[in-house]
Amino acid sequence: MTFTGLSCPLPVTTTDQVLLGHGSGGKLSAELVHDIFLPAFRNPILAELNDQAVLSINGSRLAFTTDSFVVKPLFFRGGDIGSLAVHGTINDLAMGGAKPLFLGAAFIIEEGLPMETLRKVAASLGRAATACGVQVVTGDTKVVEKGSGDGLFINTSGLGLVYPGVSPSASQARPNDVVILSGYVGDHGIAIMAEREGVEFDTPVASDSAPLHTLVASMLNVSCEIRCMRDPTRGGLSSSLNEIAQQSHVGISIEEAAIPIREEVRGACEMLGLDPLYVANEGKMIAIVDPSVADDLVAAMQRHPVGREARRIGVVTQANPGWVTMRTPFGTTRVVDMLPGDQLPRIC
Amino acid sequence: MTFTGLSCPLPVTTTDQVLLGHGSGGKLSAELVHDIFLPAFRNPILAELNDQAVLSINGSRLAFTTDSFVVKPLFFRGGDIGSLAVHGTINDLAMGGAKPLFLGAAFIIEEGLPMETLRKVAASLGRAATACGVQVVTGDTKVVEKGSGDGLFINTSGLGLVYPGVSPSASQARPNDVVILSGYVGDHGIAIMAEREGVEFDTPVASDSAPLHTLVASMLNVSCEIRCMRDPTRGGLSSSLNEIAQQSHVGISIEEAAIPIREEVRGACEMLGLDPLYVANEGKMIAIVDPSVADDLVAAMQRHPVGREARRIGVVTQANPGWVTMRTPFGTTRVVDMLPGDQLPRIC
Repeated sequence: MTFTGLSCPLPVTTTDQVLLGHGSGGKLSAELVHDIFLPAFRNPILAELNDQAVLSINGSRLAFTTDSFVVKPLFFRGGDIGSLAVHGTINDLAMGGAKPLFLGAAFIIEEGLPMETLRKVAASLGRAATACGVQVVTGDTKVVEKGSGDGLFINTSGLGLVYPGVSPSASQARPNDVVILSGYVGDHGIAIMAEREGVEFDTPVASDSAPLHTLVASMLNVSCEIRCMRDPTRGGLSSSLNEIAQQSHVGISIEEAAIPIREEVRGACEMLGLDPLYVANEGKMIAIVDPSVADDLVAAMQRHPVGREARRIGVVTQANPGWVTMRTPFGTTRVVDMLPGDQLPRIC
Repeated sequence: MTFTGLSCPLPVTTTDQVLLGHGSGGKLSAELVHDIFLPAFRNPILAELNDQAVLSINGSRLAFTTDSFVVKPLFFRGGDIGSLAVHGTINDLAMGGAKPLFLGAAFIIEEGLPMETLRKVAASLGRAATACGVQVVTGDTKVVEKGSGDGLFINTSGLGLVYPGVSPSASQARPNDVVILSGYVGDHGIAIMAEREGVEFDTPVASDSAPLHTLVASMLNVSCEIRCMRDPTRGGLSSSLNEIAQQSHVGISIEEAAIPIREEVRGACEMLGLDPLYVANEGKMIAIVDPSVADDLVAAMQRHPVGREARRIGVVTQANPGWVTMRTPFGTTRVVDMLPGDQLPRIC
């Protein structure tokens, strides 16, 4: 992750306190980034608002990213805070066209956390890192008093090497580019929600938490004409597409019927009053690609275990710059806005 | 920071819950590292237990580190959590012989934090980074519910380029090496304690929070025969020296009379029942250096604003491997052990 958000001028922060919605990945998060963090840390790399910084050091292009994880509960169907902390950071590096190499892991533990819980989470984090071919090379532990934390928070920072000839960025989408989505949306958010609220489904929903770096590598093997990659985590598909539309000054038009949503996720969303386009994913990606290579890229993605359901879901347009619109199965068109606040707090 | 700690085998963790003392930087912290984190993340870079990982990427030697800050209160005499988060990570890079280049900053905010507090901290973090010549290139924000955090926690990760010909490590101290300390110890811990407990001194104690990278650069200008550098933060001078003695399998003998402690810090420690050798510092360093260059290095340090009080405080010995001993002004010798638990929680 980095401080992602809209690139247009926004009104200054309108609340005098930080709200849960400021962590949503939606409009309030973007306000915080534009009103507080960008002015405080002003520099051109941060201002790109990508999921990772790309740095030139001694002639090498390195991707660098940081992300904290405060997911509640710590264990859920399909993963836990340890594996999630690896996948989230691996994916931020992968979205920058980088091969992930090294992780840092920092633990903020609430006094009284069962040692067995910490041991399980650390083991899961270590296993996930090994499975991704990266090493946890640096770490830190802090302990806060009971009542000053909530069990366990983990920060992972990541370092990767950007593949030669590749420089995807949220600012590079061009009219006529094709929008590709790698698979079903909404699984992670609904899995967490179900766990947290004790909701049971006939077919249980598992988080899609998964690393995307080998999928990206197999895509880059086919073509480097990938303008932009994003993993739609907090704020869901809609927020990621809105960020790209804003930062590239283009419109994005998607087809509702093309977006794959599991029946059980759709049902859960209806029951809970959620829109699946705003629900977090942890193992999915959007790619904005040159139309000439779109078919080959979709085919390559479908051959990869985490891209089997990959498909085109829309196109980039000259019309409606800064806006995402969606054609419904009934032929009508609606605006897909960014969420103002938070649908589901502490999803990652 | 990285998972620092003793390198000798330790008993497995003896408590079934995480205690405040596990975050102390002392023996309990080392237990956690050896019992949980090293087995989970097993790799040779992490196993070096330095304050930073040194990575070879495309022929460049990069230093990489991560550190979370949970200091309470957020503002204190001499600094705040924002400037501390910069100095802490800059110093971990500097102790690896690296020129700091880039930072990541991740904020975990408790719902309800005044926006003005966040703005002040971010501005301070940005100013400190600029003053150190580094850029905050990536970031993240999470918000947790009221009661699930404590105002604000910050993680900073850092990336630097290791100077050519330099590879200091806690495992490289050799008998007859000289132990140099850069200045007064105990200031940071006592400043935080005073602020937290509302204690007032005739001469107020300010935190020594300061970046050490230019001091290190001026030392390396004189000689690369620096075996090991450490900033004695959590756990104080005693913990850092014990870690070096253990990891290098040498003894360290220091002179009590040579260790500079401000009168007001000594007084506060007496009043509060603390030992200044265990109190945290945030702008001090220990260097273990070849005896042939010790005088020149001390002189170079004394010419630098943050090293004016630099001096020899002891020597590395073949005798007593793994132990730190101290000669008192009365001619007696005592063992300076690592602290088992925590003197002052949430000091950084």
